[in-house]
Amino acid sequence: MDRDRTRAILEDLAGGRLSVDDAMLQLRLEPFEDLGFAKVDLHRGIRQGIPEVIYGAGKSPEQIVSIARVMLDRGVETVMVTRLDREKADSVSEDIPIDYDPISRIGVIGEHPSGEPVGKVTVITAGTSDIPVAEEAAVTAELLGNRVVRVYDAGVAGIHRLLSHSEDIMTSRAIIAVAGMEGALASVVGGMADCPVIAVPTSVGYGASFGGLSALLTMLNSCASGVGVVNIDNGFGAGYLASMINHMESP
Amino acid sequence: MDRDRTRAILEDLAGGRLSVDDAMLQLRLEPFEDLGFAKVDLHRGIRQGIPEVIYGAGKSPEQIVSIARVMLDRGVETVMVTRLDREKADSVSEDIPIDYDPISRIGVIGEHPSGEPVGKVTVITAGTSDIPVAEEAAVTAELLGNRVVRVYDAGVAGIHRLLSHSEDIMTSRAIIAVAGMEGALASVVGGMADCPVIAVPTSVGYGASFGGLSALLTMLNSCASGVGVVNIDNGFGAGYLASMINHMESP
Amino acid sequence: MDRDRTRAILEDLAGGRLSVDDAMLQLRLEPFEDLGFAKVDLHRGIRQGIPEVIYGAGKSPEQIVSIARVMLDRGVETVMVTRLDREKADSVSEDIPIDYDPISRIGVIGEHPSGEPVGKVTVITAGTSDIPVAEEAAVTAELLGNRVVRVYDAGVAGIHRLLSHSEDIMTSRAIIAVAGMEGALASVVGGMADCPVIAVPTSVGYGASFGGLSALLTMLNSCASGVGVVNIDNGFGAGYLASMINHMESP
Amino acid sequence: MDRDRTRAILEDLAGGRLSVDDAMLQLRLEPFEDLGFAKVDLHRGIRQGIPEVIYGAGKSPEQIVSIARVMLDRGVETVMVTRLDREKADSVSEDIPIDYDPISRIGVIGEHPSGEPVGKVTVITAGTSDIPVAEEAAVTAELLGNRVVRVYDAGVAGIHRLLSHSEDIMTSRAIIAVAGMEGALASVVGGMADCPVIAVPTSVGYGASFGGLSALLTMLNSCASGVGVVNIDNGFGAGYLASMINHMESP
Amino acid sequence: MDRDRTRAILEDLAGGRLSVDDAMLQLRLEPFEDLGFAKVDLHRGIRQGIPEVIYGAGKSPEQIVSIARVMLDRGVETVMVTRLDREKADSVSEDIPIDYDPISRIGVIGEHPSGEPVGKVTVITAGTSDIPVAEEAAVTAELLGNRVVRVYDAGVAGIHRLLSHSEDIMTSRAIIAVAGMEGALASVVGGMADCPVIAVPTSVGYGASFGGLSALLTMLNSCASGVGVVNIDNGFGAGYLASMINHMESP
Amino acid sequence: MDRDRTRAILEDLAGGRLSVDDAMLQLRLEPFEDLGFAKVDLHRGIRQGIPEVIYGAGKSPEQIVSIARVMLDRGVETVMVTRLDREKADSVSEDIPIDYDPISRIGVIGEHPSGEPVGKVTVITAGTSDIPVAEEAAVTAELLGNRVVRVYDAGVAGIHRLLSHSEDIMTSRAIIAVAGMEGALASVVGGMADCPVIAVPTSVGYGASFGGLSALLTMLNSCASGVGVVNIDNGFGAGYLASMINHMESP
Amino acid sequence: MDRDRTRAILEDLAGGRLSVDDAMLQLRLEPFEDLGFAKVDLHRGIRQGIPEVIYGAGKSPEQIVSIARVMLDRGVETVMVTRLDREKADSVSEDIPIDYDPISRIGVIGEHPSGEPVGKVTVITAGTSDIPVAEEAAVTAELLGNRVVRVYDAGVAGIHRLLSHSEDIMTSRAIIAVAGMEGALASVVGGMADCPVIAVPTSVGYGASFGGLSALLTMLNSCASGVGVVNIDNGFGAGYLASMINHMESP
Amino acid sequence: MDRDRTRAILEDLAGGRLSVDDAMLQLRLEPFEDLGFAKVDLHRGIRQGIPEVIYGAGKSPEQIVSIARVMLDRGVETVMVTRLDREKADSVSEDIPIDYDPISRIGVIGEHPSGEPVGKVTVITAGTSDIPVAEEAAVTAELLGNRVVRVYDAGVAGIHRLLSHSEDIMTSRAIIAVAGMEGALASVVGGMADCPVIAVPTSVGYGASFGGLSALLTMLNSCASGVGVVNIDNGFGAGYLASMINHMESP
Repeated sequence: MDRDRTRAILEDLAGGRLSVDDAMLQLRLEPFEDLGFAKVDLHRGIRQGIPEVIYGAGKSPEQIVSIARVMLDRGVETVMVTRLDREKADSVSEDIPIDYDPISRIGVIGEHPSGEPVGKVTVITAGTSDIPVAEEAAVTAELLGNRVVRVYDAGVAGIHRLLSHSEDIMTSRAIIAVAGMEGALASVVGGMADCPVIAVPTSVGYGASFGGLSALLTMLNSCASGVGVVNIDNGFGAGYLASMINHMESP
Repeated sequence: MDRDRTRAILEDLAGGRLSVDDAMLQLRLEPFEDLGFAKVDLHRGIRQGIPEVIYGAGKSPEQIVSIARVMLDRGVETVMVTRLDREKADSVSEDIPIDYDPISRIGVIGEHPSGEPVGKVTVITAGTSDIPVAEEAAVTAELLGNRVVRVYDAGVAGIHRLLSHSEDIMTSRAIIAVAGMEGALASVVGGMADCPVIAVPTSVGYGASFGGLSALLTMLNSCASGVGVVNIDNGFGAGYLASMINHMESP
Repeated sequence: MDRDRTRAILEDLAGGRLSVDDAMLQLRLEPFEDLGFAKVDLHRGIRQGIPEVIYGAGKSPEQIVSIARVMLDRGVETVMVTRLDREKADSVSEDIPIDYDPISRIGVIGEHPSGEPVGKVTVITAGTSDIPVAEEAAVTAELLGNRVVRVYDAGVAGIHRLLSHSEDIMTSRAIIAVAGMEGALASVVGGMADCPVIAVPTSVGYGASFGGLSALLTMLNSCASGVGVVNIDNGFGAGYLASMINHMESP
Repeated sequence: MDRDRTRAILEDLAGGRLSVDDAMLQLRLEPFEDLGFAKVDLHRGIRQGIPEVIYGAGKSPEQIVSIARVMLDRGVETVMVTRLDREKADSVSEDIPIDYDPISRIGVIGEHPSGEPVGKVTVITAGTSDIPVAEEAAVTAELLGNRVVRVYDAGVAGIHRLLSHSEDIMTSRAIIAVAGMEGALASVVGGMADCPVIAVPTSVGYGASFGGLSALLTMLNSCASGVGVVNIDNGFGAGYLASMINHMESP
Repeated sequence: MDRDRTRAILEDLAGGRLSVDDAMLQLRLEPFEDLGFAKVDLHRGIRQGIPEVIYGAGKSPEQIVSIARVMLDRGVETVMVTRLDREKADSVSEDIPIDYDPISRIGVIGEHPSGEPVGKVTVITAGTSDIPVAEEAAVTAELLGNRVVRVYDAGVAGIHRLLSHSEDIMTSRAIIAVAGMEGALASVVGGMADCPVIAVPTSVGYGASFGGLSALLTMLNSCASGVGVVNIDNGFGAGYLASMINHMESP
Repeated sequence: MDRDRTRAILEDLAGGRLSVDDAMLQLRLEPFEDLGFAKVDLHRGIRQGIPEVIYGAGKSPEQIVSIARVMLDRGVETVMVTRLDREKADSVSEDIPIDYDPISRIGVIGEHPSGEPVGKVTVITAGTSDIPVAEEAAVTAELLGNRVVRVYDAGVAGIHRLLSHSEDIMTSRAIIAVAGMEGALASVVGGMADCPVIAVPTSVGYGASFGGLSALLTMLNSCASGVGVVNIDNGFGAGYLASMINHMESP
Repeated sequence: MDRDRTRAILEDLAGGRLSVDDAMLQLRLEPFEDLGFAKVDLHRGIRQGIPEVIYGAGKSPEQIVSIARVMLDRGVETVMVTRLDREKADSVSEDIPIDYDPISRIGVIGEHPSGEPVGKVTVITAGTSDIPVAEEAAVTAELLGNRVVRVYDAGVAGIHRLLSHSEDIMTSRAIIAVAGMEGALASVVGGMADCPVIAVPTSVGYGASFGGLSALLTMLNSCASGVGVVNIDNGFGAGYLASMINHMESP
Repeated sequence: MDRDRTRAILEDLAGGRLSVDDAMLQLRLEPFEDLGFAKVDLHRGIRQGIPEVIYGAGKSPEQIVSIARVMLDRGVETVMVTRLDREKADSVSEDIPIDYDPISRIGVIGEHPSGEPVGKVTVITAGTSDIPVAEEAAVTAELLGNRVVRVYDAGVAGIHRLLSHSEDIMTSRAIIAVAGMEGALASVVGGMADCPVIAVPTSVGYGASFGGLSALLTMLNSCASGVGVVNIDNGFGAGYLASMINHMESP
């Protein structure tokens, strides 16, 4: 609860406009609605004017619809649902219109965000199989209001492919480097770029890739400065963090 | 090599001011000096007007002095040396003045950066033993021109300690969360903040902390959005990335 | 074999009411029935007046029915079957009435325990996907005679959600903290509570959660005192231990 | 901050005895003292009348003395310092009287707790090398007001040794099972006891014991119900949790 | 190639009964038949008069039939096929008679070994889910001519169950201890027995059992002497090794 | 981009045959075609006159056909597709002729390479289940123009089988040792051979083989000199590296 | 407690020669002496006429002397102390005569066992650095009455070295294969031998040997039948188990 | 034993120039000398005319001198000792002249190999701390008769440094890529080169580098073809394998 709201409550109490009991109640009042199976946090979305997010994995279509409806009722304009497989998306769409993208597995309920995208977030993958995770990142960033450039299949084993995109890399405000077998991508991109690089290991790969662990360790051990790592396959997290950085205003 | 310099060389060649051989040479000319044991990259430091960094671990005092001298000769104003233990710092100081801080293990050769620090980077630790890594991050960020706020010993097992600093957390432009035993710190801070959070696992801890691996995994699994992780104990990397983010200008 | 029974046998022998051979036999007599594929331990259940438990995973419906029948025949009033999937529960119900709960995957054969639940055990989850494990803990605790309060979807990345339940946390006699991605929950709850906290890592999660290992390590490394950890997904074990603690009488 | 204190502040404000600014201040006032390097939490110790604890590892003797003094000044009667090696204890004793036990590595500053120990906590080790961790648990439990019974060197490879202590095991209110090579101890004790068992894996061992990991996994996989596990070598945590359980009053 | 055979060849050569080329050939002659996809080793089986073994996993029914036929043609009386699932066994039985046991997943082609079983091998499991691996060991041992006693579901969390079988344990010539969750079984049995104990970790279990790794580590760390460990789920290997030991003759 | 091409461009520019802009363009021109989802690298294949390779896993039949067509259009004679399962191969064959081998899972589009195979590459497996990976290596090496000898099912637990092939081992120019359970194969072969040995761990095996990790570690720890290891199951990589070595010309 | 002793006590009770209380006492009487820090088990040693063993690591010289004295007082003739470093051995020798071998780190207190060694146990190492562990096994086996043959530095990368010892391998009653880098040794020896092979991984090695884990996994994955594995560096355990097997009498 | 020697023995036997017993002896005669603690293999060195190698780690100076003397006596011209620290080298030099290089930790006893080095082996490191391992590889390759080019401190985070050496990379016959933190080096170099690349992970690094495991996994997962990996820090093995490849003659 923010300072201004606290002060307002205290001033109401001091001014006799509020009883002690009511003040206590309001000081505790939670800005979220309880659906029994989940708490819908309405605090941030409305304040920030950005889409509210439902993590779709492990939720039933009915739960997704319920949560989305509470959000829309409270004034949220865009609800984005991540990790949504096609079957669930189809079930959801029977109850509420949803715009579903099968590659990023993101669905949008409500209005697509309007407004001009800002800045430049570049999403780079090492191989073609890293594309689904990259798309989760790219679509997330787009929905959060960022201009996104995609550079796919530019792994470091063919370094000239990556070098041919140096200009995009040099002019980005944030870069998302997505790689499974070739965790090395983050190091090389980090060395080329002047902006923060968010590294996303993917679970793509065979042999000793151990479900992304190998790429994760490589990215953490990157010698390039300015690289932060998110969880394996966490395209959403990368897109969200890149958006935060790209939207930074001058200090 | 940037586009403008390439164009200039090509125009000199086209204009007959340069032979083909010289053009080839210049197109390949490396912007770093080779000391035999190390290549000194002079490219970025001078262009960006920020301190040049020497990673001190695994280098002899003589090597550090040599590299620093080349840098200073080429116009670098501030050389910061990281991972420098006291013995090495003492040896270095016999050859060249160095301002050494034993907690962060950072030494400064040359001028301290002048100029007003900007923005706000908050460095938070879970425990007292995380302080050396936190100081590496904090001093790095200060040397790179950031205003830094320190909140130490505010682990989540005493959540009221952390909550008492909510204001600093809410008004930061970047936060560095440093924790060994309590990797949980990043999640909680990430949930409280509206800015990017850089999580630094530390190798502090006993039992099943496995040299920081436990904290690393916790931080990667953080459910809070907007959290990026750097390598275990990598205070420098966190300070550098936080500085990049804090210095972002409006898109 | 307890002291009193041993003494009784020895006194019968000394009194000539028992031959040496019979005494030897009785001293060895096992208080369990051997079904060939499993030994049914009848010792504890009957003495303590609490439900007898069958671990359902890896047992066929026929085996479960056989074991349950032996128990009921010997006077057990309530048999609870854990880790029972719906198909098996359906098969069992063809032979013997069973009250099955698909979320906790617990079935009850025989009478539900009567008697007033005592004390207060609070079960908290970080996310919605942790609920099945939490329900295994909660239903177990209820069947063992505990009053249970559920607080679900209160992960630490939204710390205000958790804080809004501080009263339940402060007044519990035992707390079960269930979390997959956010092992941090145990630390924060442990720091808020004055009673023992039983932490249950869950295998829920993606990326570097490694089937619950990440949450397990986080929970073990909790800096809060008064936290004990059970195996990944072991809701039953947590409910059982919480019940033991909640039923403690004054020393 | 507890409800009563909040209500008191709000009533003072409503009654005009407090300004809005002072109320805001008091609502935020932290019940701990900030020493710069550490926050001394004075909240719980004074309220509960139990020793306050300083985790000694990673703190300098000066820091330990400072923290202890603040505690004593605020009315704490007993300060116990854990993980204190002999050299540090000697340094501390130059500034402030400390009663140091080299086996458990626990020092006591101030008064030893008076009052009769209650209940019964049994501490069992598998081998002789597990004794230091066991003593950390035992001394902790004693300082927290518990009657403690020690059963050492009773590993399950000589099961008759353990069985000869069945009576102590059956009559305990909480048991602490400490083992490195023989994590199996927790299973067997858990099967014999009717009270909660706290398992402490130790880093003692050679070969594939992996610093306690092997014992940790064994303990987590115990088939006995009523077993909770704490971190490797965490004798203090086990003693603290056992004390909580042993002090439970009837519901 | 054994010494006697080598000497015979050399004597034939010295005696002019063999040309140099034929001697070279015979010295290299391989005692196995090459089927293209597999080499059938006929060396040991025939000499020792024990069943020949085909490892069934990863072989097609056709391959199994081909290999078995070569063996039978060369005078092998009993062919046992391990790791044979029911579908494959059915396919095999269309070509050649096979006596299949679905629990141990062992099939026997040809004659069952006649002759009286010798000695005593006891197979003990901790739980009911360890039975399939135990049966692989038990049936293997029986086919190799050992008298086998089965003690199932005797885990150490109910130590009295195990103790009630002490007589079988004390009179065995070799014991096979099979356990997943309760690797502790090997320690306890090893401490009770005077004969070699072969420990078989099983991949049965949930949570932090990690596919048998936890049981494997526990067994390796057993403090009891006289315990050797085979691979996870390797019932055949345990049965084979126990048979070797049980058939030992006086030195 | 190679030196000669750079020099040619610069000379054209110096000679006025090229504008500065065109020179800049050509210096950047990428020798690959962009299909949107993948970049087709045409650089190496055409120059070296060897088959171009498509890694089939994670690509749709349509994508494979598109990439292959671009390659064939640009003059590539042989396209080999690896990690191609039968279903995908059937789909591809509806659009373009493909010669598919189900054991190695390699398909060939276009002409099979003509020309005499050179040298000698021996592929050895420890067991029959390692054959698919071995065939991927063998077929790769054959398509790349090498004479290949296969020695299968020659694991070191029957050392005489392996010794009977010493002549092939001694006369090879490169050996590929493929093993899952018996990583030991590489050590023994490495000790027998005078040529480079490429070790391929396979994910075949059960128990503590951990998906090939055990074989990988064994191979890395081989005491024989002259052994290099490729990734688990990476038959293609082994075949490619062996071909490189076998085609070496005298220095 | 064995059956005969139990029967005797019961018969005394039945015959009135013993009170019920005394019978209860005797039925519980422990056959070991309690020194406070350790329990001395006198049960087995005296019965079996073999040396009693003290595990020296983690015990002080004083403790070793105390335990040894109790043993000697009770009639034990030979006490062997394992894992005894030279300094401790020197301290022990000040109080009691000890015959110390610095390579195996085994000391003998009391008489060396007389009597002719029986059978044949062969100890094989892969390299020279495995010798200390091998000697622990060999000396243990010798003290337990076995004839021991040593074959050192016979790793499989030079397979002819090992083959030159085939005769010893073929005529052993038990073989101990000791290897760090070359875990493969156990597979090859297992394939050559007809007797049980006990594999001892050693922590010798560098790189990816991970303190013996690599050798351990290799040994567990051995395809040879008749191989059992003991813990890393556990030479004593291997010698003890080999002795058990070598002393087997005909069934 | 090679075919020609076998044939010669058999012909002598057939011709009566050898008894059967002598033939048996000679067929078994081992081409190595037994020093008790080590077997000196004299077979390969003399035949191949290359230095004989002693692995110095874990051997005493006396053992090194003994082995070297046997080798020199038998006609070996150059003995190279690897993993030799300075103290041991000093001790050795008291008995026998040795030319010691402290960076590669290699000593040479006897003559340095004469003869012109052939071909081109390029050794590349990512950082300055990888240099010792790289020097072990480089000096090994030089002693084995290869022309060696060193490119140090050319990690991929500064890709322009590496690109400035493309010519050396393109013209090598074998490349050794040595990297700790930046395992990525192997991928990038592998993509640039047309010759085999031997990747050497080093244990250099901090944080989540896990003693080289991270670099090892990265290198195994390299997407570049033609890359083989040796053990962590195994510079010798890399130099040896590179030499084998560089010395290949045309097929």
